[in-house]
Amino acid sequence: VFDLVTFGEAMIRLSPPYFSRLEQSTSLDIYIGGAELNVAVTANRLGLKTSFVTRLTQNPLGSMLANKVREQGVDTSHILWTEEDRVGLYFVEHGALPRADTVLYDRAGSAMARIKPRMVVWDDVFASAKAFHVTGITPALGRNAVEATEEALRKAKEADLLVSFDVNYRSRLWTTRQAHRILTPLMKYVDILIATHEDAVQVLQIKGKTYEEIARKLVQSFGFKVAIITLDSTGIIYRRNLAAMAFHGGHIYKANKYKVQVVDRIGAGDAFAGAFLYTYISSRGDVEKALKYGVAASALKHSVPGDINWCTKEEVEKLIVTGVSRRVNR
Amino acid sequence: VFDLVTFGEAMIRLSPPYFSRLEQSTSLDIYIGGAELNVAVTANRLGLKTSFVTRLTQNPLGSMLANKVREQGVDTSHILWTEEDRVGLYFVEHGALPRADTVLYDRAGSAMARIKPRMVVWDDVFASAKAFHVTGITPALGRNAVEATEEALRKAKEADLLVSFDVNYRSRLWTTRQAHRILTPLMKYVDILIATHEDAVQVLQIKGKTYEEIARKLVQSFGFKVAIITLDSTGIIYRRNLAAMAFHGGHIYKANKYKVQVVDRIGAGDAFAGAFLYTYISSRGDVEKALKYGVAASALKHSVPGDINWCTKEEVEKLIVTGVSRRVNR
Amino acid sequence: VFDLVTFGEAMIRLSPPYFSRLEQSTSLDIYIGGAELNVAVTANRLGLKTSFVTRLTQNPLGSMLANKVREQGVDTSHILWTEEDRVGLYFVEHGALPRADTVLYDRAGSAMARIKPRMVVWDDVFASAKAFHVTGITPALGRNAVEATEEALRKAKEADLLVSFDVNYRSRLWTTRQAHRILTPLMKYVDILIATHEDAVQVLQIKGKTYEEIARKLVQSFGFKVAIITLDSTGIIYRRNLAAMAFHGGHIYKANKYKVQVVDRIGAGDAFAGAFLYTYISSRGDVEKALKYGVAASALKHSVPGDINWCTKEEVEKLIVTGVSRRVNR
Amino acid sequence: VFDLVTFGEAMIRLSPPYFSRLEQSTSLDIYIGGAELNVAVTANRLGLKTSFVTRLTQNPLGSMLANKVREQGVDTSHILWTEEDRVGLYFVEHGALPRADTVLYDRAGSAMARIKPRMVVWDDVFASAKAFHVTGITPALGRNAVEATEEALRKAKEADLLVSFDVNYRSRLWTTRQAHRILTPLMKYVDILIATHEDAVQVLQIKGKTYEEIARKLVQSFGFKVAIITLDSTGIIYRRNLAAMAFHGGHIYKANKYKVQVVDRIGAGDAFAGAFLYTYISSRGDVEKALKYGVAASALKHSVPGDINWCTKEEVEKLIVTGVSRRVNR
Amino acid sequence: VFDLVTFGEAMIRLSPPYFSRLEQSTSLDIYIGGAELNVAVTANRLGLKTSFVTRLTQNPLGSMLANKVREQGVDTSHILWTEEDRVGLYFVEHGALPRADTVLYDRAGSAMARIKPRMVVWDDVFASAKAFHVTGITPALGRNAVEATEEALRKAKEADLLVSFDVNYRSRLWTTRQAHRILTPLMKYVDILIATHEDAVQVLQIKGKTYEEIARKLVQSFGFKVAIITLDSTGIIYRRNLAAMAFHGGHIYKANKYKVQVVDRIGAGDAFAGAFLYTYISSRGDVEKALKYGVAASALKHSVPGDINWCTKEEVEKLIVTGVSRRVNR
Amino acid sequence: VFDLVTFGEAMIRLSPPYFSRLEQSTSLDIYIGGAELNVAVTANRLGLKTSFVTRLTQNPLGSMLANKVREQGVDTSHILWTEEDRVGLYFVEHGALPRADTVLYDRAGSAMARIKPRMVVWDDVFASAKAFHVTGITPALGRNAVEATEEALRKAKEADLLVSFDVNYRSRLWTTRQAHRILTPLMKYVDILIATHEDAVQVLQIKGKTYEEIARKLVQSFGFKVAIITLDSTGIIYRRNLAAMAFHGGHIYKANKYKVQVVDRIGAGDAFAGAFLYTYISSRGDVEKALKYGVAASALKHSVPGDINWCTKEEVEKLIVTGVSRRVNR
Repeated sequence: VFDLVTFGEAMIRLSPPYFSRLEQSTSLDIYIGGAELNVAVTANRLGLKTSFVTRLTQNPLGSMLANKVREQGVDTSHILWTEEDRVGLYFVEHGALPRADTVLYDRAGSAMARIKPRMVVWDDVFASAKAFHVTGITPALGRNAVEATEEALRKAKEADLLVSFDVNYRSRLWTTRQAHRILTPLMKYVDILIATHEDAVQVLQIKGKTYEEIARKLVQSFGFKVAIITLDSTGIIYRRNLAAMAFHGGHIYKANKYKVQVVDRIGAGDAFAGAFLYTYISSRGDVEKALKYGVAASALKHSVPGDINWCTKEEVEKLIVTGVSRRVNR
Repeated sequence: VFDLVTFGEAMIRLSPPYFSRLEQSTSLDIYIGGAELNVAVTANRLGLKTSFVTRLTQNPLGSMLANKVREQGVDTSHILWTEEDRVGLYFVEHGALPRADTVLYDRAGSAMARIKPRMVVWDDVFASAKAFHVTGITPALGRNAVEATEEALRKAKEADLLVSFDVNYRSRLWTTRQAHRILTPLMKYVDILIATHEDAVQVLQIKGKTYEEIARKLVQSFGFKVAIITLDSTGIIYRRNLAAMAFHGGHIYKANKYKVQVVDRIGAGDAFAGAFLYTYISSRGDVEKALKYGVAASALKHSVPGDINWCTKEEVEKLIVTGVSRRVNR
Repeated sequence: VFDLVTFGEAMIRLSPPYFSRLEQSTSLDIYIGGAELNVAVTANRLGLKTSFVTRLTQNPLGSMLANKVREQGVDTSHILWTEEDRVGLYFVEHGALPRADTVLYDRAGSAMARIKPRMVVWDDVFASAKAFHVTGITPALGRNAVEATEEALRKAKEADLLVSFDVNYRSRLWTTRQAHRILTPLMKYVDILIATHEDAVQVLQIKGKTYEEIARKLVQSFGFKVAIITLDSTGIIYRRNLAAMAFHGGHIYKANKYKVQVVDRIGAGDAFAGAFLYTYISSRGDVEKALKYGVAASALKHSVPGDINWCTKEEVEKLIVTGVSRRVNR
Repeated sequence: VFDLVTFGEAMIRLSPPYFSRLEQSTSLDIYIGGAELNVAVTANRLGLKTSFVTRLTQNPLGSMLANKVREQGVDTSHILWTEEDRVGLYFVEHGALPRADTVLYDRAGSAMARIKPRMVVWDDVFASAKAFHVTGITPALGRNAVEATEEALRKAKEADLLVSFDVNYRSRLWTTRQAHRILTPLMKYVDILIATHEDAVQVLQIKGKTYEEIARKLVQSFGFKVAIITLDSTGIIYRRNLAAMAFHGGHIYKANKYKVQVVDRIGAGDAFAGAFLYTYISSRGDVEKALKYGVAASALKHSVPGDINWCTKEEVEKLIVTGVSRRVNR
Repeated sequence: VFDLVTFGEAMIRLSPPYFSRLEQSTSLDIYIGGAELNVAVTANRLGLKTSFVTRLTQNPLGSMLANKVREQGVDTSHILWTEEDRVGLYFVEHGALPRADTVLYDRAGSAMARIKPRMVVWDDVFASAKAFHVTGITPALGRNAVEATEEALRKAKEADLLVSFDVNYRSRLWTTRQAHRILTPLMKYVDILIATHEDAVQVLQIKGKTYEEIARKLVQSFGFKVAIITLDSTGIIYRRNLAAMAFHGGHIYKANKYKVQVVDRIGAGDAFAGAFLYTYISSRGDVEKALKYGVAASALKHSVPGDINWCTKEEVEKLIVTGVSRRVNR
Repeated sequence: VFDLVTFGEAMIRLSPPYFSRLEQSTSLDIYIGGAELNVAVTANRLGLKTSFVTRLTQNPLGSMLANKVREQGVDTSHILWTEEDRVGLYFVEHGALPRADTVLYDRAGSAMARIKPRMVVWDDVFASAKAFHVTGITPALGRNAVEATEEALRKAKEADLLVSFDVNYRSRLWTTRQAHRILTPLMKYVDILIATHEDAVQVLQIKGKTYEEIARKLVQSFGFKVAIITLDSTGIIYRRNLAAMAFHGGHIYKANKYKVQVVDRIGAGDAFAGAFLYTYISSRGDVEKALKYGVAASALKHSVPGDINWCTKEEVEKLIVTGVSRRVNR
């Protein structure tokens, strides 16, 4: 009985230490990551029972990925194992202004990129599940992955699950034009849509003079239950005051940013989605509260090395209630 | 012949590297710390001859603590050694906004927490000493520690030492109510009182509309020679302009903050106390100068990893004279 | 439905890097360990479904322990959580001849040391379990722990589980005399007994001229189904030829040592027990095969840093079949 | 004017620290490696002017590889750069007995695996070169790589270069049967053949009762100028007394092993080949001397972390003259 | 045929990790540095063919320096090697406000400090070179170094090279008065002069009310083709808006600062010089463009650990075109 | 009141990690060392009150040296401080067979190499001291150092101290011929002479067919109270059975080797000397016992990273009584 099932690629992430360029590095720190994996972890840490579905090559890197998913309490029993293909990798180089964070993907030919429809037995996975989440990265992995994503979304809908989708456009994987063509037909399965302002405009091709207008048009165009606009694709919450907004039931909900000191911005958007889903599902649809939890979890994620949001529900709630403090907790 | 004797717990401090959460860490950096130890080190580095009194279990962790105190030039000949109990530990997790620094104490059952009156032969220790410093942490360690602290303060007073006390309220050790009940009767032994604004109000229960009023009332209520208010318990000198003030001989003295980039704020208050005492003692009571040295030493401490303030007298004095500079010293 | 349940203390293990003395170290590597935990992990990695029962303090160190148990696939749903007490620690200093490996325990006052009877609801835990394993360390943790261990063994027996017990005498926790007095009455619940030669003689007080005689007498005196003698408490398999033997059904079974290069000998005995139990249970009582798997898993453990035996069933089986090879696997 | 040109894949090598299993690791050390690259480096360090030819993807990992080849003084001007494909990786897990060193290749789809005939302009590369070296790994990379290797060997022969070939069979890349079928037709271009005893028998299918007989038959069957048998594919020089032998001009030459303490055996065979070629070329064909240099360089390589043999000509010559010493050089 | 030759000391740089004070450190990270070396590297990375001339002691530290110069593609064939003297070292302690970065030089007695005239055969070096760059550090190394610098500048001028000079005053090596006396007579050889505002005033003793006036007077007084004023000796580009200006052909050119987050400011000035020279030479004298490239390269350098500017031409050009972005490149 | 005063150079030691070659390293571990310093530390750890006399440059490296001497409890009040010269460094590269450990000294121009007679006020230092120890390294540092050593030895003798001398020949500092010429006249001040077999023969030019004969002749030729021959200059105790012997009062005393696993052999000879002196002085001349303590301390030193022997008196005594054990101490 899973509250939430997510579906996507899990990768080994390799990062040079402390602002070192990849080209100059002599060692790499190992983390794990993947958008849907990150969402499952945050949702699980906050309180949902989640399962992560992916395809992995059976070798020490594949085992490491499954171990670390399980370490977070997320179910791994539906992971598909193969002797073929490879484990996807990616390299994250942390930038300091004026140098931006840079991601070098090395995921071509991974087991998940070669997923095909009917590999996952969705009827089993969804047997007693409540919600399903996937992002625009999964269909971007390859031709068969598009079909496999469509199958998953369709099956989720048929099984009457709440369906959540984060656009998560990645320019290293496809063009906005390709993304538009592939993603648009999938929108009909989606209940909760999460998109950055840019992705809404460029990928979903919704135009509007204000964020509010875009959010409203998203709901009107695609029939979402909830449409969420996050306002900075590089971390949601940096600098400007508004962090995220949601349109739901004719109302606009907003949440403001927290002051953050960026340690690692990768995964901040996934922390938002995971915390939003936890709150939305456990509160039975309180969008305002879910937005608050999402923004707070995302802000906390910026302070943690790696993709994974190693924060607790207590920390998220304390941040919402008391705000940012420089006090040492002792 | 010690210029200054301090008395308290010394602990092994274990810190995850570079903003890592404790829960996710795979290694820990070793430091040492303890409020009264930190004060002794700063005072000694600046020029006082100091001795640190504590109780330690005889094992490699206890030896490490004594070694590192001695490394700083502080006398360790009055440390009490036991085969029993354990060495106190604490874990410091460095936060990045909006996540605060967090301290996890693991000091229950330590040799110092089980100190009892008459274990230390104060008549020997104070034989030719000039000043004594202790903080509110020592009596917070346990029932016997209260009595042992009272004994030390009383003996110091009887031996005609200058007595300094830093309130240093720690919410993980006791409530403000308990602290008030235990600390108030000890104030009669104290010449120099150091307190954050919050501790003055909540623990010593002195109310006032201005910092000046609180400082004055502290002197009036308890008969201190000098009462010092520091204005941010999490680092003294962050953000607002005023860093610390002192009331002495009917006058108010003030010192302003320096711009700091926080590497490690733990021990900044102790650096203040250590530098204040060094200057106060070596200048024979120049409160204004002592306040300046205290604030400068505390500002420098923020830039150094660990509790210990690895700065020199030359650096403190250069900061006072020339202010903050971004120039590379070369 | 667990194939195996184990019950004992889980500790954070802190080790200085590469032969550094604890007293000289500046960082510590974090591992987890605990005899019964290690057994559960090896059994689980080889193929059993296992659950580990312990008591943990709810803080980042406690979470880390549970996470890492779960990372190995071991069930953690029966762990007891408390806000009180502390998480046990131990420090492992790796020696190089003539300096021996040294363990410094810092486990006094831990949540598991304060376990009491009736805290664990054994009827639930054992509802559909097949086997139970505990070692002599658990009752050595304190007075209440003795009763709690007796309760667990009794309940296991009542629930008709296969009961396994490893004597695991630790001189830093109690004397052989105390161990003898406490452990002897527990032997009546035990089906499979594992003991070093020294523990059989000094703790269980069985004398004999040969290992065979001691093993036989153990079975005769206590009525075990299987009695296993391992021949070197510091690693089972070092140097002399015989690694372990078992007496079962009137027969003696033996297994020889492998040549090992010691990276970390801690946990080698637990790897033996875990692999023995896996094989014994999955083969429905093949003692000869179980002995072989136990010795091979233990030999492999010596090559792995930390308590945990990060080896696979394939590696254990390959070692049994092809023996030791220096060839690079490529 | 290159004394030696080598041709093969260069890979980023990632290794867990100090005997850690890959599955348990949290960081990886970065090295570079590749059989032909390693040979070029050793030959260059000893005194030849060498050029390394490969195909690399233009990204920070590709740049790192070229940088580190250049760091060793090896010419990189003939490296082919592409925007496509990926940089090959491999993971080396250092074993401790009874656990063997394990290599996990992640080189599928690399730029070099996709090399095709006519990509390298061999007429330019060989314009004024003296010798060419390649190993059996290069044709094992893929169908086109076979043709590209054949082209390189043929062009080298046409340009009248001395041609050296190391069989270097890798079971993770192909079967001995495939290797036999592909490599046999290439032997006609080869002047100097290097093979382990196993590779001579299983890949080249030369049978003989003694090593001498095999070496002689190799020369007879394929018309090599020199045939070299190395006696342990996992490091050439371990344990048994004979390290390598050569058949040349009707004579057998032999070289004995040195006592080695293995830090990293990867690349030891390449160090042999590089030092043999350096000596053979610079001495104008002194096989006996070349064998000695090869074995000494290979022995020294075992003491150095990474694939690269960071030793000097002086160290190789000192070892040959004075043998192994435990004295500290001070 | 070198586009650019530079001449100066190369040193091993040793830095404590992450803001640690040198006095408290237990390990040091190894980098290489030296003003003229850094310039050669940046110019080479951007596209010039450069050679670096220095004098080095033949030992592993000297080899390391030459290796790492070669790693960057810079020619090392004119380096002078000696069995005598030592390799210069320097220690860089990274500060956090209010503590400044501190450099401890340990370069006395180095092979380069003992360079003498006629050691370098400049006629060979300059045979087909286009430009020469040296800084005020080289003549500051010692009496003979002054003559050797003069010789190099004279020979460069005689060979009709473009001559570039960066004042680079270092107070730990000499006084401004000494620098003035030594450097002034060298200015007659210089075409391109780079100086901080302070160095122009204090070392070259040019006074002016505005930066523009100083730049113009530099050209008037010494007859430079181009005079460049950089506005912050500690990093060129911090805080105030103007980064650098140049006076050339009667015109003033200016370039503004980028927002930077300082990881390592050492070498930022050299990155400016290297990128300026690359652009100036490759564009045949476009001062405006060269200033832009210089400022952008210098800004990027601040984000990279070590002296070396591990950035690419593409990154420099992208920064100029699109400005600073916080977006993750993915 | 010092039981033992030692006099020599203290250096910062920099070592690449885990068998890395210096040329390939990217970080260095910091230790301290120096023969006489190491002796003082071992003697102090075992129980003597010792003072170490040297000359140091006042900078963070000099402070680090003094701190770490003090950390060991050794008195530093007689260290001479100067603003000039530099702090000596040395690099230790750990070898694995067939590659030997290699030391690269960078001590030319150090403050101690420039010591002169009358800098140390020996009358003060020796006021109430009992013994003095120096090695052949101190006079090897330079011309003035010879005189300074002679002065120290003469003053020690005049003050009636027990004088100990370890020949400690270093081929990187001088030839055996120079050493012979300088050291021979110093022997008249010496009571206890420690020499390796090679140093006795080559430096002191004592010939003999047996070790016993050499030891006896040393006493006869120079009038020592005790002459000690250690049998392996690279670690005293490796492989052959006899570790050290002493001739005293007409008797030969011998001590055998322990089996050792070498982690770091630097400082093993100094550990011998320190433990010998501790035992000799505290037992009032028991040569047999002192030899045993010396050999045991030296054996333990091999297991500890760095020059310093971080072992305790209890560990030395346990090794003597119980011999080598592989048991984990738990």
